[in-house]
Amino acid sequence: MSVFIRGISALKVGEHWNRSLRSLGAEAGINALEDASLSTVDAIYVGNMCAPYLQAQSHIGALIADYMGLSGVPAVHVEAACASGGAALHEACKAVLSGEYNNVLCIGVEKLSDMPTSQVSSSLASADDRVFSADLGMTFVGLNALLHRLYMHHFQVPPEKIAELAVLSHAHALNNPYAQYHLKLTVENVMSSPLIADPIHLLECAAISDGAAAVVLSREKGDIKVIASTMSSDYLSLHERTDLLSFSATQRAVMQAYKQANLSPKDIHIVEVHDAFTIMGVISLEDMGFAKRGEAAELIEAGYFNLNGELPINTLGGLKARGHPVGATGIYQVVDLVKQLRGDAGVNQIDNAIYGLAQNVGGIGGTVTIHILEGRC
Amino acid sequence: MSVFIRGISALKVGEHWNRSLRSLGAEAGINALEDASLSTVDAIYVGNMCAPYLQAQSHIGALIADYMGLSGVPAVHVEAACASGGAALHEACKAVLSGEYNNVLCIGVEKLSDMPTSQVSSSLASADDRVFSADLGMTFVGLNALLHRLYMHHFQVPPEKIAELAVLSHAHALNNPYAQYHLKLTVENVMSSPLIADPIHLLECAAISDGAAAVVLSREKGDIKVIASTMSSDYLSLHERTDLLSFSATQRAVMQAYKQANLSPKDIHIVEVHDAFTIMGVISLEDMGFAKRGEAAELIEAGYFNLNGELPINTLGGLKARGHPVGATGIYQVVDLVKQLRGDAGVNQIDNAIYGLAQNVGGIGGTVTIHILEGRC
Repeated sequence: MSVFIRGISALKVGEHWNRSLRSLGAEAGINALEDASLSTVDAIYVGNMCAPYLQAQSHIGALIADYMGLSGVPAVHVEAACASGGAALHEACKAVLSGEYNNVLCIGVEKLSDMPTSQVSSSLASADDRVFSADLGMTFVGLNALLHRLYMHHFQVPPEKIAELAVLSHAHALNNPYAQYHLKLTVENVMSSPLIADPIHLLECAAISDGAAAVVLSREKGDIKVIASTMSSDYLSLHERTDLLSFSATQRAVMQAYKQANLSPKDIHIVEVHDAFTIMGVISLEDMGFAKRGEAAELIEAGYFNLNGELPINTLGGLKARGHPVGATGIYQVVDLVKQLRGDAGVNQIDNAIYGLAQNVGGIGGTVTIHILEGRC
Repeated sequence: MSVFIRGISALKVGEHWNRSLRSLGAEAGINALEDASLSTVDAIYVGNMCAPYLQAQSHIGALIADYMGLSGVPAVHVEAACASGGAALHEACKAVLSGEYNNVLCIGVEKLSDMPTSQVSSSLASADDRVFSADLGMTFVGLNALLHRLYMHHFQVPPEKIAELAVLSHAHALNNPYAQYHLKLTVENVMSSPLIADPIHLLECAAISDGAAAVVLSREKGDIKVIASTMSSDYLSLHERTDLLSFSATQRAVMQAYKQANLSPKDIHIVEVHDAFTIMGVISLEDMGFAKRGEAAELIEAGYFNLNGELPINTLGGLKARGHPVGATGIYQVVDLVKQLRGDAGVNQIDNAIYGLAQNVGGIGGTVTIHILEGRC
């Protein structure tokens, strides 16, 4: 692939009560253009999940182009639930590869905090096939709780070990200025937090938040190259699947990505894993080949995935602590990787990292995107 | 461009009370694969505007792939308001051009008829920047009414001439089996129908409907070639624009399309114009160079755009009479062109048509896509 990352930006994840969706999206876009030393681009891709439902606003591709002062530029909204950011980036890569565009801006944006929690929950539940879940009273965290309990039972893993992923993410976010939380956690904190959907505790869930991040892709050679961009889908509903303890979409997308990049799991230096819930992160690490099945939690507890471990993950806080502004998450993940590959990760800098991988999950694995970046090109 | 159309399908546009969004989308997709003699594809693009709001369902790319029995295939939802179908096709073309895919399925689907009209109107109003329109009580047809009145005043065109476009579209739909309406109209019928937003009459508006259509794109040489696929954006709000009587996004997209195809307006044999409202169709014909400014309605009245006229438009009924299932419309337009270019248009067949153009509009011109097809390749 001949797609380079020329610019990045990330707004602080949090509750932006005084900001609109368009304002967040446009600022992230403008900042990324500035970082890329560009005043315009050939096309704009906007990843977002909830705007049509929560803001009752469609057409946000052209809307954000308009508010960036880039009216006239082709702009489109791409959606694949919580993988909307990754999906938008995947399409933006294709657009550059098509040879029709030189520079493309990809923005991820989400605004959740103005709305009643019931509305936000309903919007997020629409990531799953709501006919078989939300419409019957099943929440999105409830679906993850089923996996969490089955995982504990099947692999005989105690809940404290799964909770360790939240501790890791919070530790890694402490020095990230744009992280939602700067709050050190212990396993005891996590395990004593309220149960949201038994056995998932409050502090194992990524929180509701607002945010926007952006990436400028270019055909022009730069320091950071996208060497794989893949996407796969799966049955939306858990009841359709034969194996609940792995996401086949992750497995397919990552195998294809390793093939595109001509790499194997052991070649990867840093990983962004989609830890919307601790269990989702644990299963994903196994699906990508970074741990044997049933053993990821053990490795997390042993420090294998820490900043100074064998394979640092979520080095700036992941979904749990950097934050999970849903449709923006896939872009934040790639921005975090670029920070590391550029050597701009501050106190959390990982030395000698060249290959970084980001996994973005929509629904409970109904869509998965994988991007692999190469630094020092 | 080396993108060919290998298969098409179109369900009857109408009120499918007994069908779900997924059922319509999956059937259109399966039918198009059958037409293309394929059992699977490399990726699926789904154009849809209202599902996240009206069905409270996101993630419909993977959902429809699932219901087609194609779980695992990368699938994504593309949205640009009423231009969602055209935008999805534009992205699908880019995907084929990227060289990463051989065959790509592009489905347009919309399901409006289960919902209260107030909800449907609110969803459709989200095509415009709702902060400056819907939230202040302005409807989408109301915005078009402003243009309609200004056009009549500025160009001194009587309303009866603008109404002629509805008469044309209904006449052209009479023999189209998948058209929403088989109902001959006269100008008197249109002018005596109720005013929806003065000066726009009921029979000048495309109706609320359900539908799904699909196209299979391929790198493999076939009879029909996509020789231009372009998209442009504009300020979303009318109050931001300097000229209300033309859509600059249409002008930019069509100029770029003529350049891509190495054609001029006089080379085009058949046109699908976005007549969501008669005034929108009239202005669009002028913006694309098929009539001088202020003169399109006169040409319509004179029969210039009839089946036996100089430049037949909306030969199977257009948005007004074939139907306007919003996010599916851009795909229906291209299916209608392919029917003609293949010689499958039945009683309405236009002889010797080689070049066909489709214009799909999002909002009031906030997004416009143009596709030009070449037959007999």
